[in-house]
Amino acid sequence: MSNPLTEAFKNSKFQLTGHGPRNVQILKKAFADIPDDQVSDMYGNGEGIEAFENKIAAYLGKDSAVFFPSGTMAQQIALRIWCDQKGVHKVAYHPLSHLEIHEEDGLKELHNIETFLLADKDRVIEFEDVKEMDQDISCLLLELPQREIGGQLPSYETLERISEYCRGNGIKLHLDGARLFEILPFYQKTAVEVCALFDSVYVSFYKGIGGIAGAILAGDKEFTDTSKIWKRRHGGDLISLYPYIIPADYYFEKRRDKMEQYLEGAKELAAFFNSVPSISTTPIHPVSNMFHVHIEKRKEDIEAILAQLIKETGIGVTSYVKETEEKTCYFEVSIGDHYENIPKAQLKELFERLEIEIGIN
Amino acid sequence: MSNPLTEAFKNSKFQLTGHGPRNVQILKKAFADIPDDQVSDMYGNGEGIEAFENKIAAYLGKDSAVFFPSGTMAQQIALRIWCDQKGVHKVAYHPLSHLEIHEEDGLKELHNIETFLLADKDRVIEFEDVKEMDQDISCLLLELPQREIGGQLPSYETLERISEYCRGNGIKLHLDGARLFEILPFYQKTAVEVCALFDSVYVSFYKGIGGIAGAILAGDKEFTDTSKIWKRRHGGDLISLYPYIIPADYYFEKRRDKMEQYLEGAKELAAFFNSVPSISTTPIHPVSNMFHVHIEKRKEDIEAILAQLIKETGIGVTSYVKETEEKTCYFEVSIGDHYENIPKAQLKELFERLEIEIGIN
Repeated sequence: MSNPLTEAFKNSKFQLTGHGPRNVQILKKAFADIPDDQVSDMYGNGEGIEAFENKIAAYLGKDSAVFFPSGTMAQQIALRIWCDQKGVHKVAYHPLSHLEIHEEDGLKELHNIETFLLADKDRVIEFEDVKEMDQDISCLLLELPQREIGGQLPSYETLERISEYCRGNGIKLHLDGARLFEILPFYQKTAVEVCALFDSVYVSFYKGIGGIAGAILAGDKEFTDTSKIWKRRHGGDLISLYPYIIPADYYFEKRRDKMEQYLEGAKELAAFFNSVPSISTTPIHPVSNMFHVHIEKRKEDIEAILAQLIKETGIGVTSYVKETEEKTCYFEVSIGDHYENIPKAQLKELFERLEIEIGIN
Repeated sequence: MSNPLTEAFKNSKFQLTGHGPRNVQILKKAFADIPDDQVSDMYGNGEGIEAFENKIAAYLGKDSAVFFPSGTMAQQIALRIWCDQKGVHKVAYHPLSHLEIHEEDGLKELHNIETFLLADKDRVIEFEDVKEMDQDISCLLLELPQREIGGQLPSYETLERISEYCRGNGIKLHLDGARLFEILPFYQKTAVEVCALFDSVYVSFYKGIGGIAGAILAGDKEFTDTSKIWKRRHGGDLISLYPYIIPADYYFEKRRDKMEQYLEGAKELAAFFNSVPSISTTPIHPVSNMFHVHIEKRKEDIEAILAQLIKETGIGVTSYVKETEEKTCYFEVSIGDHYENIPKAQLKELFERLEIEIGIN
């Protein structure tokens, strides 16, 4: 399965992206100071799970929160609850929503919920899209940032207008906040302020936070109580979730205040990429720790160039490159702890070399 | 929430049941010898998950196996696949099946599958029940042993007859093998022999095996491939399942060959209980590591007696007692590693004291 680019990235001294390899050390570090006799949660109950749920509920400014093994499970359930409450089995979200493209149609196959795809693929949902949608829906899901288009955001004013509109029109507003922590520095808002615009919120603990897996779903008490019933139905009410909860808490504490640093890194790195002819980033000015790098060259050529450059410079640029429909290529960058370790002189050298190689090919 | 009996059990030197408290040490022990740089599985792929799936598939004698976070998820999916294949959304199982009483009707709510309850509550499903059921079903689920009635089993000949009948009548046979490892010594059969009677099999890694959580679903390749699509739909295709897989493997190796010892312990202990007037076990002669203890006394009285006896003898009998409809009471016993640590003289003393106390009350 492995190709030369993936191998080169794996063996590189530095990496532009991420917090490091997803290996067993992530777990061991998080458990190092946990006493052996700390008892497991039991089917969603117990001090360990409840303390973390309460802590994140407070952080998000919601009444109540429930820990789930996955966001896929948490979000389908959120939408199901809102649909059942209104008696309308239809929701709206972006055409590139996680639910639409990464979940094998679970929402439709398990919950029999129809979806309305709002806005064009290549841009975020704007207020006008919501106002003009002319659909009877129970819930609108907004993903902040919109991951599949490089992590773009609407303006905060747009969020406020959408929220106000939904409240006035009997539409629940759900936040796909897989990367909520990562966007707070751009909006210059607290999680409480952003989440106040939404009726329900999902956050993830293995993106910017860098935990192992797991999600929190938050909202009012009636909503989260119902979500626990659905969690059991989905097979997510495990006897023990602490193997995910303890790392989620550990890395939340470790990285919650580093999101500004990741944003600044993303801005700097995007500027480096945009300085190279044939390369551009989406968005041009990142609004979170992530962006996409588009290269107006063939995938095979870029793979070879990057594999070679990684070996020469010791800086892992990316582990993969994907082909676009136009036979150009792109990859995703998410800034984590690793970026700041790269000496700036080496970084400049990397991009000088990249410009030369791309010019030749 | 805690009562004096639960507290007394928790603080007891010895325990009749289980492998010990469900605490963080379970995880730490399993990971102690795993190298830091061992990489995570990624959404169901990778050496770690595939090696374990292949190993358990071979152990069960099936083509293929998939690791799931929970049995609830695995079994609903198994039944859904068989229903879709036949085009009949109806299955049959025991009235006290896990799916019927512990899953908040997930099978009905998520999969829209009707159920037919086979046999009386207080006995196992016999061949005649199957032969006479007169229902168009896609799948029959057998739970071996039937946990909610103390862990009872049909004869092996009955299993063979049911299997043959189902094959001849276009009915898939699914094994709820949450405690499959635990029944092999009684049947004197290998897992391969038992599983050969079934089209699909689920096994659990936190009952007799004593892992943290997690399940395997096994069957032919087409079946398990389809189960992976449903696993994603359910939100069970986590980016990392190794926090459950590594302990599952560790404790499988540690305990797979101890099931005979647990069965012998269960037989011995049940005989102790049955020697006390007003006490009887179901089944009288255990066929796995488990049985239920029924006491013809009021719950409150028994709680007080047991809490006191545990303190006096240092032997944790049970952590809870449940009331029956007839105002008598019962609790479940599952023999694990702890039972053999109890000195026989102390065990005898416990039951002599119990007989006196129950006689008085």
